[in-house]
Amino acid sequence: MSSTNNVISKINVGHYFEDFYLNQVIQHATPRTIGEGEAALYIALTGARQVLHSAETVAQSLGYKARPIDDLLAFHIAFGKTVPDISVNAVANLGYADVRFLQPVYAGDTIGTSSTVIGLKQNSNGKSGMVYVRSIAINQDQQAVFSWVRWVMVHKKVLTAAMPETAAPETVVPEKVVPEKVVPKLLSFVPVAELNIPSFLDASQFDTSNTGGSYLWDDYVVGERINHPAGMTISDTDHTLATKLYQNNARLHFDDVMMKTTAFGRRLMYGGHIISLCRALSHDGLENALSILAINAGTHCNPTFGDDTIYTWTEVLDKWEIANRSDVAALRLRMVGVKNQAADTLAGTHISNDGKQSYHPNVVLDLDYTVLMPRK
Amino acid sequence: MSSTNNVISKINVGHYFEDFYLNQVIQHATPRTIGEGEAALYIALTGARQVLHSAETVAQSLGYKARPIDDLLAFHIAFGKTVPDISVNAVANLGYADVRFLQPVYAGDTIGTSSTVIGLKQNSNGKSGMVYVRSIAINQDQQAVFSWVRWVMVHKKVLTAAMPETAAPETVVPEKVVPEKVVPKLLSFVPVAELNIPSFLDASQFDTSNTGGSYLWDDYVVGERINHPAGMTISDTDHTLATKLYQNNARLHFDDVMMKTTAFGRRLMYGGHIISLCRALSHDGLENALSILAINAGTHCNPTFGDDTIYTWTEVLDKWEIANRSDVAALRLRMVGVKNQAADTLAGTHISNDGKQSYHPNVVLDLDYTVLMPRK
Amino acid sequence: MSSTNNVISKINVGHYFEDFYLNQVIQHATPRTIGEGEAALYIALTGARQVLHSAETVAQSLGYKARPIDDLLAFHIAFGKTVPDISVNAVANLGYADVRFLQPVYAGDTIGTSSTVIGLKQNSNGKSGMVYVRSIAINQDQQAVFSWVRWVMVHKKVLTAAMPETAAPETVVPEKVVPEKVVPKLLSFVPVAELNIPSFLDASQFDTSNTGGSYLWDDYVVGERINHPAGMTISDTDHTLATKLYQNNARLHFDDVMMKTTAFGRRLMYGGHIISLCRALSHDGLENALSILAINAGTHCNPTFGDDTIYTWTEVLDKWEIANRSDVAALRLRMVGVKNQAADTLAGTHISNDGKQSYHPNVVLDLDYTVLMPRK
Repeated sequence: MSSTNNVISKINVGHYFEDFYLNQVIQHATPRTIGEGEAALYIALTGARQVLHSAETVAQSLGYKARPIDDLLAFHIAFGKTVPDISVNAVANLGYADVRFLQPVYAGDTIGTSSTVIGLKQNSNGKSGMVYVRSIAINQDQQAVFSWVRWVMVHKKVLTAAMPETAAPETVVPEKVVPEKVVPKLLSFVPVAELNIPSFLDASQFDTSNTGGSYLWDDYVVGERINHPAGMTISDTDHTLATKLYQNNARLHFDDVMMKTTAFGRRLMYGGHIISLCRALSHDGLENALSILAINAGTHCNPTFGDDTIYTWTEVLDKWEIANRSDVAALRLRMVGVKNQAADTLAGTHISNDGKQSYHPNVVLDLDYTVLMPRK
Repeated sequence: MSSTNNVISKINVGHYFEDFYLNQVIQHATPRTIGEGEAALYIALTGARQVLHSAETVAQSLGYKARPIDDLLAFHIAFGKTVPDISVNAVANLGYADVRFLQPVYAGDTIGTSSTVIGLKQNSNGKSGMVYVRSIAINQDQQAVFSWVRWVMVHKKVLTAAMPETAAPETVVPEKVVPEKVVPKLLSFVPVAELNIPSFLDASQFDTSNTGGSYLWDDYVVGERINHPAGMTISDTDHTLATKLYQNNARLHFDDVMMKTTAFGRRLMYGGHIISLCRALSHDGLENALSILAINAGTHCNPTFGDDTIYTWTEVLDKWEIANRSDVAALRLRMVGVKNQAADTLAGTHISNDGKQSYHPNVVLDLDYTVLMPRK
Repeated sequence: MSSTNNVISKINVGHYFEDFYLNQVIQHATPRTIGEGEAALYIALTGARQVLHSAETVAQSLGYKARPIDDLLAFHIAFGKTVPDISVNAVANLGYADVRFLQPVYAGDTIGTSSTVIGLKQNSNGKSGMVYVRSIAINQDQQAVFSWVRWVMVHKKVLTAAMPETAAPETVVPEKVVPEKVVPKLLSFVPVAELNIPSFLDASQFDTSNTGGSYLWDDYVVGERINHPAGMTISDTDHTLATKLYQNNARLHFDDVMMKTTAFGRRLMYGGHIISLCRALSHDGLENALSILAINAGTHCNPTFGDDTIYTWTEVLDKWEIANRSDVAALRLRMVGVKNQAADTLAGTHISNDGKQSYHPNVVLDLDYTVLMPRK
């Protein structure tokens, strides 16, 4: 038997702050084929009833070759791939922006994800720093299906480690620039001209009897608020099944023994799944929101746990016509997730404490996103 | 920003008693494609082991083009479509009858459901009424796959509302008849001559080694009772996953916060899923019950909740030969679901209280249905 | 109505010890088609991230016609078929050996299982005995996909029953031999020369960026121990969903009312699912373990229940080159499952009690198995 004293640890510990460098490209494992099984399970986990993902006949009547995979299901899988490399050592997931839904994903497609470091900023405490990445997911035909920007606060492994560099350590860089900080300029929302509307889509004959909702883009009013009536109680089993389905292996969702040693005291629900639940709950009143075009910004305001009951309301932030299209248009929406009290029992997302505004403790999600909807 | 004072509520509140009228046809949203993912999940949720839905090879040897989707899985999905329009404002789901299984459903089929109002009867309290509908589910080829009658007690929205009319309000009807009540005459069971046996089916070479049960139609005796030994404990997660899979969005199954304010104190299990569990549990002793031909009647005698353990027994009510078929015949069965005590610990479904018969509090299902079984 | 006094019980009570005889062949019900739905659900239930089962593109680049079904998912389904005939009356599941993974299983394949009795040994108490069976699972093309040996201790139904015979009771056997015991000689591990490596497989261009693990066969050292960091908390719902998916109907996993009357006090987790969880958890550090070639031996050292958190470590037992292959080789591994404490908190599997070695009460699995891994 060989000596095992000097065996290299086989465990990939992920990237610490000092391991990142500007313009670094990280290819994430493991590509994932998404099939009809994932689609069915997503319906069981969320109660989603969006017509495009439910009915092959309706999807095909709109020009899709088949039912596309639910936008958020495919996105969560693509996103989950980044966890072991980007956020496994994160102190906090701080935000995301400029999430673009570029191509439909169909059953049988295989999605792979890579990320490029676009910003770095060491915290003043010297113990951690902010890492900004732009991630892109491509399918087996090398078509981009999603792109998004995300920023996380990541621990340093060695507290005295130097600031990450702007080039790969192994690269000979004649003039190495060590910036104090590089913070990317981010869009506050994806402009209508950059939204990706499938060219094959034709909703001119859209039949609302297939969705049960009679309101189309023209009926919605900027400033309008829709209190979706349904609530959904989610168990630890529900959210861990979902997060395993997404192959997101962040340990704080799964390991109750470890989490009992934290201030949370128990497993945290994956924030992405909250988005999915709210999207499903918001079906009543937004039945004709065909697909998601963009997520402009999102905040997970408070943690969510097993046995919480999720409710949601939607506010119409903006309405945009789309160039050269009379059949569909875009709605920019604010989707607010609430736990353990119905949507109509909260007047707004914030409360005032000594004149300081903060999120109500039961507000768990504040998401700014854009959907596609048929017109009259 | 537009004024939002006069914005129309986008929430579909469903039909109240006075919104129904005789011969009204309601097209339910959303059509649903049922695939292999749903089939796999159904097995995981129920433990079903029926050979026709488990084994492609056996299904094809019997003449099916592929494994058909489990009868009850497809039925629950078709049924779930009616909830937002028919029973969302129901006081109670009172019954169903004449449920016919007309065509096999295969993975990839898309099922849509519509209902016709066939009866209306206002309650003497003036606050609610009975609504009878005949629903039909069709596949993407416009073939009827299920039809059934159901009656529910529905709230009135406005207590002084007039009795529903016999024609659509917007229709000019020269002689409008406002009946005190129209109660449809219902079959107590689907007669054997009207059962739909697939013409392609050939069970003359049926091999019982594929099912593990050696008893065929000829072996069953009218009056016989089979106590199925297995019990299955079901959690709130199990039954809500199932009910979301069926896209049945009745809130009392999902919203624990709301249900805590009711006499039940917690989420109710969807009665249809109990039927599925009992059908799966009844496999031991009915291994060769190939498919369901009809549900003649059903009563959900007592509520069922998460953490209940379900058992079942079966009584043979009748045996019917089928015209021109020597390979298969029909068994009319009574399937009784019991909670929290084994089937063999109950002599019957009813108990006597001061001479009054009522269901034993642990009897949760009393279902009269008809199955197809190979003959010797 | 017929008299039902003399109706034959339709319940299959399974085999008691005296019902088995040497060389008996038992065809198990029900064949099962395994599809993409099962594959997706398995990922959700285990968090598995093995590349071969996740990514169609990678599987095809290695020569597979499609993503194969996860080895353990298919094995559990094949194994589950034996339960009603072999172990339903078992006192204990004592062990298994010589488990061979002979062919990949693809979505759409239908698997059937049969068993041959290869050993019998009555216990000295006369109340039960050991039954050894070799089981084989075949696909719809009659190709063997798995074979394994298993031994269980089975109750006698009639305590005075004679020792099982060496031939079928109904067979005329001129010289009937009633052996005191026939105990088969079992391999302690499947030798490398008998491992089945797919001939189509070509891993010479294997790209580790698809798995996230940079270590290949050459990097592992005999004696090395890998403490996999992740833990996974499993609920009763999780493990019963999995076991129902496998169509394993052993009642002690499902019936909480019955189990409350036992010393366990609650439902037991199916041991096979523990193997699956540990295999999924061991991904970090064994990312390039492509597939399972054999399970050499396994012990379920302690019971596992809902709400336990599972961790795992791996020890490298042996390394084998494979004849005529430079692209892949075999690793013989010991996978140890631990509950409710992280893998790195236990120095070994055993503790000493008054000089007697026994498994640590939190060690739940001790599995000896062999995997295929690409070489440098």
